[in-house]
Amino acid sequence: MGHGSDVHRFDSDTPCRLACLDWPSSPGLAGHSDGDAAAHAACDAMLTAAGLGDLGANFGASRPEWAGASGEALLRETVRRLGETRWRVVNLSVQIIGERPKIAPRRAEAEKAMTSVVGAPVRISATTTDGLGFTGRGEGLAATATALLYSVPA
Amino acid sequence: MGHGSDVHRFDSDTPCRLACLDWPSSPGLAGHSDGDAAAHAACDAMLTAAGLGDLGANFGASRPEWAGASGEALLRETVRRLGETRWRVVNLSVQIIGERPKIAPRRAEAEKAMTSVVGAPVRISATTTDGLGFTGRGEGLAATATALLYSVPA
Amino acid sequence: MGHGSDVHRFDSDTPCRLACLDWPSSPGLAGHSDGDAAAHAACDAMLTAAGLGDLGANFGASRPEWAGASGEALLRETVRRLGETRWRVVNLSVQIIGERPKIAPRRAEAEKAMTSVVGAPVRISATTTDGLGFTGRGEGLAATATALLYSVPA
Ligand SMILES: [Zn+2]
Ligand SMILES: [Zn+2]
Ligand SMILES: [Zn+2]
Repeated sequence: MGHGSDVHRFDSDTPCRLACLDWPSSPGLAGHSDGDAAAHAACDAMLTAAGLGDLGANFGASRPEWAGASGEALLRETVRRLGETRWRVVNLSVQIIGERPKIAPRRAEAEKAMTSVVGAPVRISATTTDGLGFTGRGEGLAATATALLYSVPA
Repeated sequence: MGHGSDVHRFDSDTPCRLACLDWPSSPGLAGHSDGDAAAHAACDAMLTAAGLGDLGANFGASRPEWAGASGEALLRETVRRLGETRWRVVNLSVQIIGERPKIAPRRAEAEKAMTSVVGAPVRISATTTDGLGFTGRGEGLAATATALLYSVPA
Repeated sequence: MGHGSDVHRFDSDTPCRLACLDWPSSPGLAGHSDGDAAAHAACDAMLTAAGLGDLGANFGASRPEWAGASGEALLRETVRRLGETRWRVVNLSVQIIGERPKIAPRRAEAEKAMTSVVGAPVRISATTTDGLGFTGRGEGLAATATALLYSVPA
């Protein structure tokens, strides 16, 4: 098993991409690639569970071919790398922490989108921090993920 | 497996309820229901592990019959819903992050209280953030939880 | 399974010790012992997974014999206590969250150092919080850990 977390600052000049979905009514997430913190946290959780390094080691500055890749593309490639080393995903739990976008009405849709990319059950919860901290002040969005894997005998 | 976290702001006008215990010498936790962040994080961890949605989907604004319910009641109902879908709890790990209340002297008691509600081992750790962030400034309290479940054959 | 997290404030007057390694070019971490937040979070994760209490209960103020002990010493003793109660570590996932030290170039080395102390695979990821919160402002460093254990029959 492994876990990960990711944070991105809001940037109104960018379209919002989160959990492999578009959120047209929310400001976007700044940063490398599309800022999909849910996908990035999920990648870190799976990569560490499998002992394959972390997001930066796999797709960071030293891997320019992945510069600007979408969270969905990183997630897909992560699962492919797991498969190559005979790891399968049992399940993935993701929590999205922030004021925007409002996840609740599309939570099931987001689960479906990530599950389809990962090829195993991805469960998503959403919460806020009661107005506290950078997430509560609406400065940015955080996501955390835990992954349970199993190893397929050779 | 699944995980969750929850944050509530301190509110001196409210009695403190945390980890299914009363903490008479601490300010209370504001917010929906009794603000029991430990119980809420535990519910999110178990619900996502079981693929049953999150705390909001199960007990939020769209479920007015649960408005104001205690964290203990939500925890009990969560375990009941797990049971209905043939999920059992292997164990639950909860971390309470904040300056108050002082958990250490009653940590074992809190474990016992939550274990009794969940019907499986709940382990609690407590930590602070070295004066940093909203937890360090004593503005609020955070709790995180991870849950491991197993599925009972039909 | 269990999880934990730890936070320490930076203190330029202290040498930096993190993940059982020295980081000569980074300010140190203040607080009890050497401030090795990665080792401390890992101890909390393993101790709660095993139901043996938390870091404070095992090594805190009430255990003066451990005052000032290094994170590595606490990690080693934690694994010893797990062994005494017939718990073994399947794997440990650690995430280091902060601006400094730069983990990426020595991530594999840090994994090796912690793996050698724990005697089971420890996987480390590193991330930042996009300039947000106390970690983003460089005030302190946070680490989170999850542990998966199994119980050896008597
Ligand atoms: Zn990211
Ligand atoms: Zn709550
Ligand atoms: Zn510490």
